[in-house]
Amino acid sequence: MKGAETLLRTLVAGGVEVCFTNPGTSEMQFVTALDRVTGMRGILTLFEGVASGAADGYARMAGKPAATLLHLGPGFANGLANFHNAMKAGTPIVNIVGEHATSHLQYDAPLSADIDAYARPVSGWTRRVSGAATIAADTAGAVAAASTPPGRIATLIVPADATWSEATEPAAALPIASRRAVEETRIAACADALRSGDALLLLSGQALRARGTELAGRIAARCGARLMAATFFPRTERGAGRAVVERLPYFAEMALEALSGVRHLILVDVKAPVSFFAYPGVPSWLAPAAANIRTLAAGEDDAIDALARLAEAVGAGATPCVTAPLERPPRPRGALSPGAVAQALGALLPENCIVSDEGISGGVPAYMATANSPPHDWLLLTGGSIGDGMPVATGAAVACPDRKVVNLQADGSAAYTLQALWTQAREKLDVTTIILANRQYQILYTELARVGAKPGPRTADLLDIGRPDLDWVKLAEGMGVEAVRVTTAEAFTDALASFLSRRGPNLIEAVL
Amino acid sequence: MKGAETLLRTLVAGGVEVCFTNPGTSEMQFVTALDRVTGMRGILTLFEGVASGAADGYARMAGKPAATLLHLGPGFANGLANFHNAMKAGTPIVNIVGEHATSHLQYDAPLSADIDAYARPVSGWTRRVSGAATIAADTAGAVAAASTPPGRIATLIVPADATWSEATEPAAALPIASRRAVEETRIAACADALRSGDALLLLSGQALRARGTELAGRIAARCGARLMAATFFPRTERGAGRAVVERLPYFAEMALEALSGVRHLILVDVKAPVSFFAYPGVPSWLAPAAANIRTLAAGEDDAIDALARLAEAVGAGATPCVTAPLERPPRPRGALSPGAVAQALGALLPENCIVSDEGISGGVPAYMATANSPPHDWLLLTGGSIGDGMPVATGAAVACPDRKVVNLQADGSAAYTLQALWTQAREKLDVTTIILANRQYQILYTELARVGAKPGPRTADLLDIGRPDLDWVKLAEGMGVEAVRVTTAEAFTDALASFLSRRGPNLIEAVL
Repeated sequence: MKGAETLLRTLVAGGVEVCFTNPGTSEMQFVTALDRVTGMRGILTLFEGVASGAADGYARMAGKPAATLLHLGPGFANGLANFHNAMKAGTPIVNIVGEHATSHLQYDAPLSADIDAYARPVSGWTRRVSGAATIAADTAGAVAAASTPPGRIATLIVPADATWSEATEPAAALPIASRRAVEETRIAACADALRSGDALLLLSGQALRARGTELAGRIAARCGARLMAATFFPRTERGAGRAVVERLPYFAEMALEALSGVRHLILVDVKAPVSFFAYPGVPSWLAPAAANIRTLAAGEDDAIDALARLAEAVGAGATPCVTAPLERPPRPRGALSPGAVAQALGALLPENCIVSDEGISGGVPAYMATANSPPHDWLLLTGGSIGDGMPVATGAAVACPDRKVVNLQADGSAAYTLQALWTQAREKLDVTTIILANRQYQILYTELARVGAKPGPRTADLLDIGRPDLDWVKLAEGMGVEAVRVTTAEAFTDALASFLSRRGPNLIEAVL
Repeated sequence: MKGAETLLRTLVAGGVEVCFTNPGTSEMQFVTALDRVTGMRGILTLFEGVASGAADGYARMAGKPAATLLHLGPGFANGLANFHNAMKAGTPIVNIVGEHATSHLQYDAPLSADIDAYARPVSGWTRRVSGAATIAADTAGAVAAASTPPGRIATLIVPADATWSEATEPAAALPIASRRAVEETRIAACADALRSGDALLLLSGQALRARGTELAGRIAARCGARLMAATFFPRTERGAGRAVVERLPYFAEMALEALSGVRHLILVDVKAPVSFFAYPGVPSWLAPAAANIRTLAAGEDDAIDALARLAEAVGAGATPCVTAPLERPPRPRGALSPGAVAQALGALLPENCIVSDEGISGGVPAYMATANSPPHDWLLLTGGSIGDGMPVATGAAVACPDRKVVNLQADGSAAYTLQALWTQAREKLDVTTIILANRQYQILYTELARVGAKPGPRTADLLDIGRPDLDWVKLAEGMGVEAVRVTTAEAFTDALASFLSRRGPNLIEAVL
């Protein structure tokens, strides 16, 4: 058995079922092995930033890693921005990166690059296969590294000769460690803090899944504490019937205000909050200086178990948590605005759908307007590197073929990785994309004032993407995705209702 | 004066006139400084891979660096693939990369990333500004580092607080060292080699500019030596009236054949040739084992001066070189194929135009068919990282506003950085793009057989980008560029004649 087949069979044995790829010559052995091995779905992307973002979205929903197959250093580099986002989300991914044959490395050929240098900043685990003899063990190691809580990006660099040489049999999956139960003293300390009053539970990661928010909601109800989600979390299960959770605002001044008065800040699968950017004269550290900060669970800790034990400790075992009522807003009318888009989403969001939110300026209104819509999942841009909304939606749709995916998408960010639409068309993914076409980098206008910079006409020109306007209907159709442009709230709502009622992919350009 | 303005004025003092950018919050001070400083043209791109490739194309034609302005680590990472190509081309570029304010770095905010790790593999010079006090000197250092022969990527990482704090006056341009005259013994050794017979001059870099090929052509004519260009050179001036130069083939077997019998290989601004990829049983080293290899000029050496002195040494001062006659092929008829596209280009290529060739499978026929067209420049993909043809065309058009740019572009590679079309539309650049729409990664089919891999239907699916077909007319129009689709040689030739006769940007989808 050739090394490529051993590698592929080892991935399959480790439970990896999907590979997002744009392969090249050095990966051809892996690609042809797909014809001999069952159990792996190869999904082509037109650009590696789609592959990396799709692998992120897939794992957030599937709860296990996808693989990527990338072409040498430059292919990996094209995926970096969305690997950055995935790393900040704590997403497990297994990267298979082709490398020149070992004998060829000495020659500094055109595609030679320092793959290790590119890989390390985003990878929690990196290994270079030394030859076909170790490819099975190395691959099993990569899957285990990615899958071990809390999840990480594992990057395996594979010289071409290791794939075309005779190798061993594939390796079985390695055992994966369970999440760690936190020590009792931490539970007790957090219980004490909750009993002292003015406490706030800040949640992300596992704690924002339905079971986590329910437990945290009971604790909050019992202790009179506040419940808050991190600003940019990887995934939450929310909506009617689920716990009501505030969300920490993005802008530092608003976040400082939201946290003022907190005396006990309890962190559940999240770091202490800091501002996204620094601004002259505004602190980066968002918690009140006097606040007592305790971590209930982090990293490989079992946050759900910790919340359950904390609930017991504060006597909240039977306390009901405050849940969101089912309460849809009416359909919006009149001018199309981020608020109208948000209201229409609130009115129409299908039960059990998945929202990939890279709405930037338009995201928060939609998040608020859907708080009482039927239960659904909400996925956010975790690392601030724009261009992940469409790829994440793509991966989420691969992971959950029976669920509608709604991609709420700012136009400037969409232009980064619009090639994702083609993969959606090719794989017939049920994604409805909403382009919030304000035709500028709106968020930067807000930021300008905050950093004390004064814009003139040349500044405005660099923040404006409306010269010429991007025609998202043509761009989507050019990628094989049905699309429509709307300019009123009524037309938007009708288009949304129509697209949500049947399988995608499809796209609405909402001209704001 | 704020640090951002000092930085910008120092760039302008150093002769940097153009900045390709996609800025973010941490770069807002620089952006607004553009409204207060004259002499710098800010050009917005929708994706940083366009900015990095455009900076490459600009410098190849302008002979001096452009700046880029990039948003933190992820913004830089998005530019990496085309920085890789630029590095392999030896292109000078000055990267200004925004970084979080110094006080903010400790907090590992969402966009925090190891910019240095990303920058080093592609940068010949990297520096982190320590504060506003040094920003003038650091910027002048970056311009000098980029501009010093042989040219390199200089990356300056600029914390936001250094841009918003009070800084010194701007710095004047630093003196740039001239190219180095090679020692006389090297000239004499190369002259000896040429006199021994069976010699081949392999050219790239400066040696492929018109003056270089003319000198090399005289030497070759005088000594009965062969003249050959590297497979993937950054730029050559060629066509009717210029020296006839062979080109080293891409495929290793053909390259080995082309070099067989060479006893003296003389390298002029190029490394010894190696194959692009390794293949089982095929050597990577392309020169005959017995060949005597001498470097006439490399790196910071003055290759033109060295060629002139070598010409004198072999008595070729007055020997005419063999030049290409003006001889256009007839217009093609019938089915549209890479050969027909090539023939039409040969028939119609405008004098003094610039060709950005990322034609991949379709590039070589076009190169051959235009050998006797009126004089023009030809730019190639130097680092093998696809997605540079459209950005390079964009930058070349900015550098040479009075010259027509023809972008010969494979469809798979075009999909990587199609956002370049929008910048072409915005800046009204005179680029005619020819999409060679074969709807597959054709080159990989060829490579498959060569690495000994056997394709089945799943392999074919991952090499095929025709499910669905990309509609390049809609994609171009969606980006604001006029476009037409053609399916016959006659229609292609008519469309090309029409688009070449007026200012672009425009695009032809040539369905092959």
